[in-house]
Amino acid sequence: MNSKVAVYRKEHFNAAHRLHNPIWSEEKNNEIFGKCNNRNFHGHNYELVVKLVGEPDPETGYVIDLKLLSDIVQEEVIDRFDHKNLNLDVPQFRQLNPTAENIAITIYNLLRARLDPIHDLQVRLYETERNFVEYPV
Amino acid sequence: MNSKVAVYRKEHFNAAHRLHNPIWSEEKNNEIFGKCNNRNFHGHNYELVVKLVGEPDPETGYVIDLKLLSDIVQEEVIDRFDHKNLNLDVPQFRQLNPTAENIAITIYNLLRARLDPIHDLQVRLYETERNFVEYPV
Amino acid sequence: MNSKVAVYRKEHFNAAHRLHNPIWSEEKNNEIFGKCNNRNFHGHNYELVVKLVGEPDPETGYVIDLKLLSDIVQEEVIDRFDHKNLNLDVPQFRQLNPTAENIAITIYNLLRARLDPIHDLQVRLYETERNFVEYPV
Amino acid sequence: MNSKVAVYRKEHFNAAHRLHNPIWSEEKNNEIFGKCNNRNFHGHNYELVVKLVGEPDPETGYVIDLKLLSDIVQEEVIDRFDHKNLNLDVPQFRQLNPTAENIAITIYNLLRARLDPIHDLQVRLYETERNFVEYPV
Amino acid sequence: MNSKVAVYRKEHFNAAHRLHNPIWSEEKNNEIFGKCNNRNFHGHNYELVVKLVGEPDPETGYVIDLKLLSDIVQEEVIDRFDHKNLNLDVPQFRQLNPTAENIAITIYNLLRARLDPIHDLQVRLYETERNFVEYPV
Amino acid sequence: MNSKVAVYRKEHFNAAHRLHNPIWSEEKNNEIFGKCNNRNFHGHNYELVVKLVGEPDPETGYVIDLKLLSDIVQEEVIDRFDHKNLNLDVPQFRQLNPTAENIAITIYNLLRARLDPIHDLQVRLYETERNFVEYPV
Repeated sequence: MNSKVAVYRKEHFNAAHRLHNPIWSEEKNNEIFGKCNNRNFHGHNYELVVKLVGEPDPETGYVIDLKLLSDIVQEEVIDRFDHKNLNLDVPQFRQLNPTAENIAITIYNLLRARLDPIHDLQVRLYETERNFVEYPV
Repeated sequence: MNSKVAVYRKEHFNAAHRLHNPIWSEEKNNEIFGKCNNRNFHGHNYELVVKLVGEPDPETGYVIDLKLLSDIVQEEVIDRFDHKNLNLDVPQFRQLNPTAENIAITIYNLLRARLDPIHDLQVRLYETERNFVEYPV
Repeated sequence: MNSKVAVYRKEHFNAAHRLHNPIWSEEKNNEIFGKCNNRNFHGHNYELVVKLVGEPDPETGYVIDLKLLSDIVQEEVIDRFDHKNLNLDVPQFRQLNPTAENIAITIYNLLRARLDPIHDLQVRLYETERNFVEYPV
Repeated sequence: MNSKVAVYRKEHFNAAHRLHNPIWSEEKNNEIFGKCNNRNFHGHNYELVVKLVGEPDPETGYVIDLKLLSDIVQEEVIDRFDHKNLNLDVPQFRQLNPTAENIAITIYNLLRARLDPIHDLQVRLYETERNFVEYPV
Repeated sequence: MNSKVAVYRKEHFNAAHRLHNPIWSEEKNNEIFGKCNNRNFHGHNYELVVKLVGEPDPETGYVIDLKLLSDIVQEEVIDRFDHKNLNLDVPQFRQLNPTAENIAITIYNLLRARLDPIHDLQVRLYETERNFVEYPV
Repeated sequence: MNSKVAVYRKEHFNAAHRLHNPIWSEEKNNEIFGKCNNRNFHGHNYELVVKLVGEPDPETGYVIDLKLLSDIVQEEVIDRFDHKNLNLDVPQFRQLNPTAENIAITIYNLLRARLDPIHDLQVRLYETERNFVEYPV
């Protein structure tokens, strides 16, 4: 057994979105996405849990300073997504349907680019208390 | 001491909204409501707790059948607000700023009209886990 | 304003029950109580919150030692109700339908008899996270 | 790294049960299962979290429509277990002790038969907030 | 019925403390406060819920801007108590035993001095998930 | 697929601690650990989730009796850490900085020595609701 530890930091943001595939008809969008397709949007309190895996530094006892991880999440995710309309305000979702799956993959990519490759990364995103996703597996 | 009991039912809905006062300038709206004023909306998972006070029926042991209360909340609140844009889709907020305070008062009025006057009513509305309101006091 | 403080202690118990009025027909019981009338019982993790109001003792800074309150709840409620069938194992519900309302009133009476009359008492009982009751009002 | 995402759906049901091994004496059942062996049953609010792993569909952005997953859980699990006595009302537990471990394995098997083999499946079952199980590992 | 609404803001702080009455012997302190009397301190994640009651402003729809309330709680409570030893670092508890009751009264007094007298104020303080207090009643 | 099941037990303890590296200057400790370095300590309600993996016993349907697991956690962890100052009262942290990572590894080692090697073990430790760690990975 190695000495790796997983550390987790939970953050949240509030955003509006709608699910929509522009190459489909209105009828098909409505059939597939139901009330999530509402043209005027709806919204969620998203809860984000970021998991980082690595060996604790022997001098600090930290895998990473969670304050630093929180600052990176703030800059890369919260500043971009919080109190925003994901479809209209966030460039990443101009062409990409903002399902929980796609939001989680997008957040992973934003954070992965800022974190030391020595650390494994996983994100869990709660759209509601009862619907949530995790990436990568 | 009387024999009244309070019964509570928790429901939820997901909606988009923005805070905005149409008689103010854009600058003043931005100054007062900050990121909640985003013109493209943001959203929340609203948690609603409905409190009803009355004497338990001696035959059933119920103040009210909570299934019935849940059905009334479904018809009056969830069907109107869930997966909607409060500002654009809900007539009650055409002229009324959808702050948590105003949403709670609106929900109270919708439910009050459907419930037996013998029962006292109070609503608590969570906009986030950390911001919530209660009406009446 | 007086100097009274409310103190709360949360406890839990797991029990089986069914809702049933013996003077009604099987049909009427089924119509009124639905699946809660299942003759073989169902069950819940009940969460109990006990509220006591009084002035803090100047020497201890306590309204009551919550360890002592917890011990009284253990003796009067948990030892009687936990891992029991409320209808069959608990004398109080031989003739009384174990709705959340009636369970809360019963718990109140059991605790009231053990606590100093100088302290006001209220109990809140969660049958599920979404259905709960409070007594007295 | 592949592009698989895990999606989760949380549901709940309320049921009565008792732990009991019919080939043991009453004394041994009591010694091993303690108050969980109460012949008149006790009960729980079971929380069930279903995890499905797969690649998001490029057209919908969904691994699976969680509404569809919820409907399958409703048919296979909730309709069978909710407001039931697991020992008496559910055929799967006529011969099988309804521990959390065995309930989770049973739920897994019921759901596995209904879901596309392309998706990995795991279930987590909370018997209480403090005792829970997961299958498979 | 008036048009008053209660608004709530939840904050938290982490602190060390011990319960101790300096005019008592070590034995009596130990007898009364048990393990909470540990001379080297123990600690808690305190959750604080601040309740403010008033009429919503017709122009904003707010009883108070919760961001402003949060800032006041930050200055008066969090900056003083968070990551502190209540007994050693906080002047208010030099002579006052930091029970949950006394911490809540102290927080009330700090906030009351900063808030408009037109608003009623109440604080709820969770020492643990199972032990909490409220002031005033 | 094997027939292994993971079982989880959640416990908690309240403790004081400070983060500090004795070979560093006061300035460096302050720079790295910030307010967590407060010389008078601060504290937390730690939530501990212990995960054990194994095959259910065919006679009991248990991987392990969770009451037994709870008793072991009580003896090895709660009795040592609850209402203690981790730095001053717990020998394991005389030389080891009590970060969440190091506390989790320490708890793992204490429990591993008491449990049957046939069972895999993992611990998750919540320092706050938003900061938590897991070991091993």
